[in-house]
Amino acid sequence: MKFTINRDLLLQNLSAVSKALSTKVQMPILTGIKIEVANNQLLLTASNNEISIQAKINDKRLLRVTEDGTIVAPGKYLIELVKKTDSKDIDFIGYEDNSIKILADKSDFTLKCLDKDNYPLISFDDSKVFITIDAANLKQIIRKSTFAASLSEARVILTGVSFQTNGNQMKVVATDSYRLSRKVLVFDHEYPEIKIVVPAKSLDELNKIIEEGEEIIEIHFSKTKALFKYKDLMYQTRLIDGTFPNTDSLIPTEFITSVKFNKNDLISAIERVSIFNSNEASDIVKLTLNADKTCEITSTSNEIGDAKEELNLLECSDSISLQIAFSSNYFLEALRSFNSTEIEIHFTGEIKPFIVTGEYDINLIQLILPVRAA
Amino acid sequence: MKFTINRDLLLQNLSAVSKALSTKVQMPILTGIKIEVANNQLLLTASNNEISIQAKINDKRLLRVTEDGTIVAPGKYLIELVKKTDSKDIDFIGYEDNSIKILADKSDFTLKCLDKDNYPLISFDDSKVFITIDAANLKQIIRKSTFAASLSEARVILTGVSFQTNGNQMKVVATDSYRLSRKVLVFDHEYPEIKIVVPAKSLDELNKIIEEGEEIIEIHFSKTKALFKYKDLMYQTRLIDGTFPNTDSLIPTEFITSVKFNKNDLISAIERVSIFNSNEASDIVKLTLNADKTCEITSTSNEIGDAKEELNLLECSDSISLQIAFSSNYFLEALRSFNSTEIEIHFTGEIKPFIVTGEYDINLIQLILPVRAA
Repeated sequence: MKFTINRDLLLQNLSAVSKALSTKVQMPILTGIKIEVANNQLLLTASNNEISIQAKINDKRLLRVTEDGTIVAPGKYLIELVKKTDSKDIDFIGYEDNSIKILADKSDFTLKCLDKDNYPLISFDDSKVFITIDAANLKQIIRKSTFAASLSEARVILTGVSFQTNGNQMKVVATDSYRLSRKVLVFDHEYPEIKIVVPAKSLDELNKIIEEGEEIIEIHFSKTKALFKYKDLMYQTRLIDGTFPNTDSLIPTEFITSVKFNKNDLISAIERVSIFNSNEASDIVKLTLNADKTCEITSTSNEIGDAKEELNLLECSDSISLQIAFSSNYFLEALRSFNSTEIEIHFTGEIKPFIVTGEYDINLIQLILPVRAA
Repeated sequence: MKFTINRDLLLQNLSAVSKALSTKVQMPILTGIKIEVANNQLLLTASNNEISIQAKINDKRLLRVTEDGTIVAPGKYLIELVKKTDSKDIDFIGYEDNSIKILADKSDFTLKCLDKDNYPLISFDDSKVFITIDAANLKQIIRKSTFAASLSEARVILTGVSFQTNGNQMKVVATDSYRLSRKVLVFDHEYPEIKIVVPAKSLDELNKIIEEGEEIIEIHFSKTKALFKYKDLMYQTRLIDGTFPNTDSLIPTEFITSVKFNKNDLISAIERVSIFNSNEASDIVKLTLNADKTCEITSTSNEIGDAKEELNLLECSDSISLQIAFSSNYFLEALRSFNSTEIEIHFTGEIKPFIVTGEYDINLIQLILPVRAA
């Protein structure tokens, strides 16, 4: 193996595939990045069994291959080394003892490699049918959904985000059974039935790699895997096996009142009343709506004290008295998922789920289950 | 107690005194910030027994006192609350049950206070003789010394930085017995004898509060305490009891060769050869000086591989062969303490201490003890 590559291009691609590097010692081979050089093309692959990422580099101005070959280099050290180097190009030369020479300016590294025969065979397979979506849109979907997925392995299916097509629509749902996020995407043509559950963690990692923009991403599906093709990257994640609960019936459609707030004012108020709860097990705050259309949020900590915030109602559909208690953190995460400046809360009762919508967040619903107020 | 205060000014002063807040549960009262209002002046005090900080606010345009009083408010919550508030002014009103009402725009907080009678009496006393130094200079002294102090409590005296006057000079020394930092300050007049050891940690905290600039700082001394007066802040630290070792005799004055390097090139090279050591107990690198005035730095990790960096010598006083091994981290910390672009290393032998100097770092010496090369 022998090639010369542009340092910045290499670092950028190493950083991308490193998101799939395993930190677990159970499978040492997966702490390595597989480097394959053949046909004037360089492939970088990393995998942790959950996600696998492959980057392809074949720009002849930035890569000169002299001799083909394959190695598996310790990922962490390889990346650190390229990062700390400031030369324009870096030379890689296969070396005795399953090692690789890495030369950059006045630096001369010999890095011991892992046994490439131990590296698992990873296939990145296209499907016949795939969805296309632009980068900005996919990032929005991830940002609006994954936070609502469960962190507990007690019901593994809820640690994922459900994607389900129906004609020209796709429903994206995540829930930990105390709150729920639902976004419906409408395409300009019909897709065949897709019904998969993608691990929320995989989507969060994917989000770190994708840059804002109009770049088109292809999403390929199989029974057990989803493959996202983004630029010269292939990002593959395993799917969660099982049936995602049908959540449509949980989302109320009739309300006793709907109240409109400035989103940022509401977020700031909730953040402030939550300060005294910050060290406590419970993060419950109470929202009180009065018949005179005033509103306040309160919290009480026996140890620290009381907090009260008055809130401006921008609009209120029905004048009623209502007091509802909920997790401030769940509410904050839901609010932050909106792009709209103004959001609307739709109440169905004091101990019934309420939903949040935003004028400019089409087809997005965040639902929160209240708790019984003390 | 009743007063109205500008939010930004209060936050700035709370942040400063918070550096002395105790996080230990052994003395709950020290998790509080003492707020004293009297004579149209506000005093904020925090202490953790090691350091005590007091801030004085008496700007009539920014503070309006209606009723005098003293309370001790839970520091963490008070600061968090002021930070999250965006109103211009905040009202503080003493309230029943040893509580304080804090009103800001539409926020209404009731914060339970600690028992002010439990707060220790802290005196911030001037000394007859004090040193004056400008902020930028004091920050430099701290930055060049504290890193070399010991982190181990085995020899408590070495966890401090020694300040010792002699005529119009003051010697600032820190050492953990494997490396040593010495800076000599020359004043334009003589000071009486001062011989104190200040905890390195206290200096690091002080450094966070002081802003770069020409602001003059007074340093007052007693047998057990040093008091730094900076703007409207009093920063007091206890001193370390005991005699700091006489280190002058350890610093070599005759050398077999002196070698000049570009500091940043040297730092980058050391950082790179240290990558393979990053997970290992030892961070030893080896510097080899050849008779032909070439130089290289190497490191070897049996697990990961070898690293070698060639270095440009800018100057070399004597052509000799020499190989010396040392802790890369100690060397890097020493190098980073210099402002000079070019630094000089003065060698006395392969297993003898070497020192580093820099043209524009007057009277600064960093000494490092080598280890026996494997």
